[in-house]
Amino acid sequence: MQKRPGGRSARVRDAVRQATLAELAEHGYDGLTVENVAIRSGVHKTSVYRRWGNAEGLIADALELARGEPWPVPDTGSFREDLREIVRSVQREFADPATGPVASAFVTAAALSAAAAQSLHGFFATRHDQAAVVVRRAVERGELPADTDVTDVIRMAVAPVYYRLFITHEPVTARDAERAADAAAAAARAGVI
Amino acid sequence: MQKRPGGRSARVRDAVRQATLAELAEHGYDGLTVENVAIRSGVHKTSVYRRWGNAEGLIADALELARGEPWPVPDTGSFREDLREIVRSVQREFADPATGPVASAFVTAAALSAAAAQSLHGFFATRHDQAAVVVRRAVERGELPADTDVTDVIRMAVAPVYYRLFITHEPVTARDAERAADAAAAAARAGVI
Repeated sequence: MQKRPGGRSARVRDAVRQATLAELAEHGYDGLTVENVAIRSGVHKTSVYRRWGNAEGLIADALELARGEPWPVPDTGSFREDLREIVRSVQREFADPATGPVASAFVTAAALSAAAAQSLHGFFATRHDQAAVVVRRAVERGELPADTDVTDVIRMAVAPVYYRLFITHEPVTARDAERAADAAAAAARAGVI
Repeated sequence: MQKRPGGRSARVRDAVRQATLAELAEHGYDGLTVENVAIRSGVHKTSVYRRWGNAEGLIADALELARGEPWPVPDTGSFREDLREIVRSVQREFADPATGPVASAFVTAAALSAAAAQSLHGFFATRHDQAAVVVRRAVERGELPADTDVTDVIRMAVAPVYYRLFITHEPVTARDAERAADAAAAAARAGVI
């Protein structure tokens, strides 16, 4: 299917995506249906089925669009502050009632669907690359060893936030986020990442 | 209900629990039903309903029993090796086809059910306390600062394994596990955890 940017196809895609996100926010992955997305978006049900197939297809496309969105990388001049800001932004995203339920629904969808897991995998590959810019800068400034695994520094920094949210079901404070960032920064400086 | 250790009640509970674990291994949380657990355990369906209520109750009880099981804490004499062994044991548990699907089913159940999340929260609180013994020993030996948050060292060490498994859906190697342990150990030595 030919997709002209800004054309009818792009408008339909955006409407379906917005409806998908709104449905996820309200009902979670378990409540996501092609029917409800069709009603909410005003796009005919048969069109949604033809183009997106099912709930997994809707999730995959919403993640594909999220992946392509601009994602501002902090540049405070301090590696520690940059890393803290990245982890705090993750913590804030989940704490925000406007974005948290949708982000959580993506994680749940991936636990239940291999296709959604594949989409989420791709989404995080992009985010890791984008966030790793702050680590690469620190390497270039000579603050970190040249052989630092820049994306693994990002994984180590954000992992404790996700661990509390989705594994142990513990609260996550801004202080927890900062501490996780500081731990990853210290480990990177020690040359173990 | 009075529960005599080793009595009929304990035997029934164990049979139901074993059936719950086997059903989770085969069908995941989505496929867990009181009916199937009753058939598999040989315990009458009405008894299972009366005592466990539903799939959430079965999950909660299986976790409660897992929580009470002995969990060997490594004691190699080296903090780094002890921590590596803890994280590797998590990595191995999920890689093992006999235990991985069940452990994954608990995480998925917690994403879908607040009651299961509460059970998993309690399970991890116990595991963190048990594993933190290796960190406490390192503090006592003077290897780590006296104000080290011993359970947070455990969280930071294991979080990257869970992050790869349940968030980014990336493979996890024994080397990834060791690196995560080394990162947490370095951060603890630097006094940031």
